Amino acid sequence: MFVKKCLALLLFVAFGAPTFLARADDGMWTFDNPPLKQWKERYNFEPSKGWLDKVRLASVKFPGASGVFVSSNGLIATNHHVASGFIERLSTKERDLLKNGFYAKTQAEELKVPDGNVSILESYDNVTERVHNAAKSGTSDADSATKRTAEIAAIEKDCPTALRCEVISLYSGGEYWLYRFKRYTDVRLVMAPEEQAAFFGGDYDNFVYPRHDLDFTFLRVYENDKPAATPNYLKWSATGAPDGEFVVVSGYPGSTARLLTVSQLTYQRDVGNPLQEKVWKTRRKVLEDYSKRNAEAQRQANPGMRSLANSLKRLEGQQNGLLNPRNFARKEAEEKDLRDKLAEKAELNKQYAPAWEAIAKANADLPSKANQLAFSSLGSSRLATIAQQIVTYHIETAKPDGERYPEFRDTRLEAFRSSLLSPAPIYLDMEEAALTAWMVEARNLLGANDPFVKAALGEAEPAEVVGKAVRETKLTDPAVRRSLLDGGAAAIASSTDPMIMLARRVEPVVRALRDWNEKNVINVETANGTRIAQARFAVYGKNIPPDANSQLRIAYGVLKGYEEDTTLVPFRTTFFGLYDRALSFDEMPPFNLPASIKNARTKIDLSTPLNFVYTADTIGGNSGSPVINRKGEVVGLNFDSNNQKLSNRYWYIEEAEGSRAVGVHSAGIIEALRKIYDANELVNELIGK
Amino acid sequence: MFVKKCLALLLFVAFGAPTFLARADDGMWTFDNPPLKQWKERYNFEPSKGWLDKVRLASVKFPGASGVFVSSNGLIATNHHVASGFIERLSTKERDLLKNGFYAKTQAEELKVPDGNVSILESYDNVTERVHNAAKSGTSDADSATKRTAEIAAIEKDCPTALRCEVISLYSGGEYWLYRFKRYTDVRLVMAPEEQAAFFGGDYDNFVYPRHDLDFTFLRVYENDKPAATPNYLKWSATGAPDGEFVVVSGYPGSTARLLTVSQLTYQRDVGNPLQEKVWKTRRKVLEDYSKRNAEAQRQANPGMRSLANSLKRLEGQQNGLLNPRNFARKEAEEKDLRDKLAEKAELNKQYAPAWEAIAKANADLPSKANQLAFSSLGSSRLATIAQQIVTYHIETAKPDGERYPEFRDTRLEAFRSSLLSPAPIYLDMEEAALTAWMVEARNLLGANDPFVKAALGEAEPAEVVGKAVRETKLTDPAVRRSLLDGGAAAIASSTDPMIMLARRVEPVVRALRDWNEKNVINVETANGTRIAQARFAVYGKNIPPDANSQLRIAYGVLKGYEEDTTLVPFRTTFFGLYDRALSFDEMPPFNLPASIKNARTKIDLSTPLNFVYTADTIGGNSGSPVINRKGEVVGLNFDSNNQKLSNRYWYIEEAEGSRAVGVHSAGIIEALRKIYDANELVNELIGK
Repeated sequence: MFVKKCLALLLFVAFGAPTFLARADDGMWTFDNPPLKQWKERYNFEPSKGWLDKVRLASVKFPGASGVFVSSNGLIATNHHVASGFIERLSTKERDLLKNGFYAKTQAEELKVPDGNVSILESYDNVTERVHNAAKSGTSDADSATKRTAEIAAIEKDCPTALRCEVISLYSGGEYWLYRFKRYTDVRLVMAPEEQAAFFGGDYDNFVYPRHDLDFTFLRVYENDKPAATPNYLKWSATGAPDGEFVVVSGYPGSTARLLTVSQLTYQRDVGNPLQEKVWKTRRKVLEDYSKRNAEAQRQANPGMRSLANSLKRLEGQQNGLLNPRNFARKEAEEKDLRDKLAEKAELNKQYAPAWEAIAKANADLPSKANQLAFSSLGSSRLATIAQQIVTYHIETAKPDGERYPEFRDTRLEAFRSSLLSPAPIYLDMEEAALTAWMVEARNLLGANDPFVKAALGEAEPAEVVGKAVRETKLTDPAVRRSLLDGGAAAIASSTDPMIMLARRVEPVVRALRDWNEKNVINVETANGTRIAQARFAVYGKNIPPDANSQLRIAYGVLKGYEEDTTLVPFRTTFFGLYDRALSFDEMPPFNLPASIKNARTKIDLSTPLNFVYTADTIGGNSGSPVINRKGEVVGLNFDSNNQKLSNRYWYIEEAEGSRAVGVHSAGIIEALRKIYDANELVNELIGK
Repeated sequence: MFVKKCLALLLFVAFGAPTFLARADDGMWTFDNPPLKQWKERYNFEPSKGWLDKVRLASVKFPGASGVFVSSNGLIATNHHVASGFIERLSTKERDLLKNGFYAKTQAEELKVPDGNVSILESYDNVTERVHNAAKSGTSDADSATKRTAEIAAIEKDCPTALRCEVISLYSGGEYWLYRFKRYTDVRLVMAPEEQAAFFGGDYDNFVYPRHDLDFTFLRVYENDKPAATPNYLKWSATGAPDGEFVVVSGYPGSTARLLTVSQLTYQRDVGNPLQEKVWKTRRKVLEDYSKRNAEAQRQANPGMRSLANSLKRLEGQQNGLLNPRNFARKEAEEKDLRDKLAEKAELNKQYAPAWEAIAKANADLPSKANQLAFSSLGSSRLATIAQQIVTYHIETAKPDGERYPEFRDTRLEAFRSSLLSPAPIYLDMEEAALTAWMVEARNLLGANDPFVKAALGEAEPAEVVGKAVRETKLTDPAVRRSLLDGGAAAIASSTDPMIMLARRVEPVVRALRDWNEKNVINVETANGTRIAQARFAVYGKNIPPDANSQLRIAYGVLKGYEEDTTLVPFRTTFFGLYDRALSFDEMPPFNLPASIKNARTKIDLSTPLNFVYTADTIGGNSGSPVINRKGEVVGLNFDSNNQKLSNRYWYIEEAEGSRAVGVHSAGIIEALRKIYDANELVNELIGK
């Protein structure tokens, strides 16, 4: 067995760049360029345009995640952990829906999520030429960036009223596309299991397989107070997919960094990731300390701690990938191959070769500012973030549309306002604890004389400044926020709200850092990343998908177990396994079962599949993505990756190494809805009687 | 989690030798020197002499394995894989007890195992002084060895009639003990589950945990055709042990090599283990090829293939341990510490320091002969082995007792004859295939002019020589073997049985190699190993147990799960897990369930514990050992180690690294006997009604 495994690794190493790119079920592909050739050759799968359109229009974009329409009446299936922010907003101390779960037997009982919104990608167009032409007229990288930004703003403005338009950069700026989204702003909760059922095994079992999580939730979008008509929905499969079945995964993967240069990866490995870890650990520690105060504090802090634990475990896996010399050497070999092939063509080489040096230089300058960039932030407090956004809003909206920060362009203002004015609850004690601890850490790290620290604190102690700001601010009231937004710059300038005053003081420091970073790093990376993308197209053609960027992608693979250590890991788990894992631990948390599951033990067909694994190329953001069979049916909901797959942020990890995506099985969801949650009305809507 | 794990490893490395030896639940201790101090200090456990005596007298020695008396009527519990050789001998093509299992409802139905025998350690005495004094009178290592051997033979001869006596070397010859065994030669099969239940998951799940194996079998010893009276039996626990419970494991661990020098370990790593792997792989391939002929061939080859697969997987794990530079460096540090401390005492140093050099030199000479030593063997065929044993028997028994090979000393002849005359079935096709393929490989490796190859084959082809020998020999008949044994040397010299002729031809070659090895390696290692052991006693005292050597030992630990990768592994599994693993694989073999288990699904309490893990220090040979609680009750049967523990042949692997022994839970066995096998009479004998 050892030998077999080593052999797989050796083969893996032996394949050089870039031929390896075409060997595996890799890639999160755009819908304009799906991997039709691979599908046909390897799986004899030739979807019609209608099939692809339907999958696209059924794929629902959540903030940072995915979902799918599963009935013609606006019903959405997604993961519990995707909807948990929504569920938390609907929860109170007295009615803890996260803990206890929820089911609306009738539409009348469905709960409207404060500030809930989702969207679908209605249509798209290639605008690369317009954007590139605009940038080409620039006299420097910085001037090109300004011209590019202005052109993008102009393109986005030319948008049908009912839609929201966004210009998307692909291939490090090698392509630009105009995406038009239909937005749904009335989202209601239909059904959610208990968090303990959805997240059974907790952080321990996160990124682990075999797995036993009922990580699903059902929502419904409304228009004009009626369930939205969603004719482009995917049918729910009552049986799911067998071993070996071909599937696609459609969703909104967050971010990969596979087209980064070696110098960018080196920065990530040596500076960026360790710093990010420090930031998240600081935030997590604050929440952990806070959560120990009492049960209510724990309830408030739970979603944040869970999210940070997830981020940290993922980051550690990614960083382990970068620290793996074999993987890193492969990346270096890939870059060398491209640059060597480029060197054979003198003209191309002259044009593109300097791009790598320029990016390397930018990344060499970055570490000197990295701590400041990471810690000059009020982001650990929602109130402070609101204040900062209001202050910046007035500065930015005073400028012409094309010169603003992207998030303040006219086309995004509606979404910005809706988020800012959300009545979602704010917990003052947690705000105060989080921001105070953050400022203490920032002062420790940056020093008392750092511009941000000085602007925020002056000569005072963090507890004093933050305590006053949190206790005395009126920003907890959405109406106050609205009046400050609508009051114009004068209202801000004269405000004596201590949180607004804090935000006003740090605004110039944060702005200067952001500007420095854009000028010296981001613009350089964008301009030269575009050049490298063009070089890659010139050498290899457009044979790879672009890096993921929270936009719609389609991936594919098969249901398949794998070898781990010296044994086999099965392609699926069953309800037997859920009870085994709970009882094997004597139900020690986080391996305890909610009462509903305990009570249903004799009713459930324990052999029903619960979770399963498949080889598709996914990443964070794909949570809630439908796993779809050839017939276009939903056979499961993607909800995780195993450990082996974590470093696929930087490169696709071969399926032979056991990298797998993890899904909740569609038959397991039906069994749970019927036998554990008595949600027969919902089952009927999904699969009929 | 990553950090936590690394921390454990760092701590592990930071502790220097030899203090680490006392930190953990390590050691397979002799009953003359149990770790009473550790038990008292760590677990407040102070067993009486009676408690220890009872455990010793209930611990049953199998050939290469262990078991335990569990009723006063001679009932033995052991692993199925320990008894599988017995079960195979009772099986025929028509009645495949390995495949179908067996249960004798009454004693009359119990099946007597051909050549079955087991023993217990009745008493023991320290004879170190006698043996050392004899050796001291020698004029060289070789002469000392002769004198030592003669003294040992003399001690062994002075033995009560009813017992079998053996002088055991401990601490590389630092101590010698006379062990007196009571032997039982009438062993009968009482109950065995199907091999598929006992070995569910097959070679894949071997050395793997979580695990779901019903790896148990019940036997009974008889005396004078009646169940033997065994008042020193251990009570069976109907409930087993909870998480964290202190347990001891009593049994016959096979072999550790923790007191070897760095030069010996280097030889193992670079030459010995790779060569052993080659030998076993050669044998396994032969059996695999043979097993493909038909179902009956597969049945015949299965036990051998399973045993080799097990050996190979273990060897790979051990070799991985040796190849781990961190572990190896720790071993080097330990040796350096001992030698440094020795160097501080001039007199001791002069006496003992040369021992390391002598062993290093012997191991440096060994590789030149290693291939010959490994491949000059007829051991792949049982018939050829019988022939070789008969030929050697007459040469050896012609000598004075003290000068013979140890296995031909008077005290061992009865066991030798009983094994040689066993009527266990011999499969001619398999014999022929195995020996032919072996000779082909030997000729390839050693060359046609090698003395062994020439003696065996002359100018002929392996198929020709072996085919004739296997087809025409009369040794399949135990009566013929007996007449050759009793006929004296002349009968052998004049025999025209082609298998005897083959054995006669190779005998001088094999003898010369064995003599070379004894003179140049084994005697040197023994003499100098003794010196090093004495040096260790002088520097540290007798604070560690001796290496395991297939003799009775007692180990201890607690039931405890562990961290693996980033999650937790539970301390036990349940019957839920058995069904989960089977159904998760769609019952793809080796994850299929026997019909009996499928049929019992609704009858079994699925939450009953099935397997469990604990921190005790065990190794191959401990299979079938009872896991015992403070009250002296059997809470399970040891049957495996996990992967993390495999390299504990060379050093104890810290429990923080997740190394665990794996047992079948006593409550799981009761549940299986009752609900799957309807063996209520057996349950009554174990725990009463």
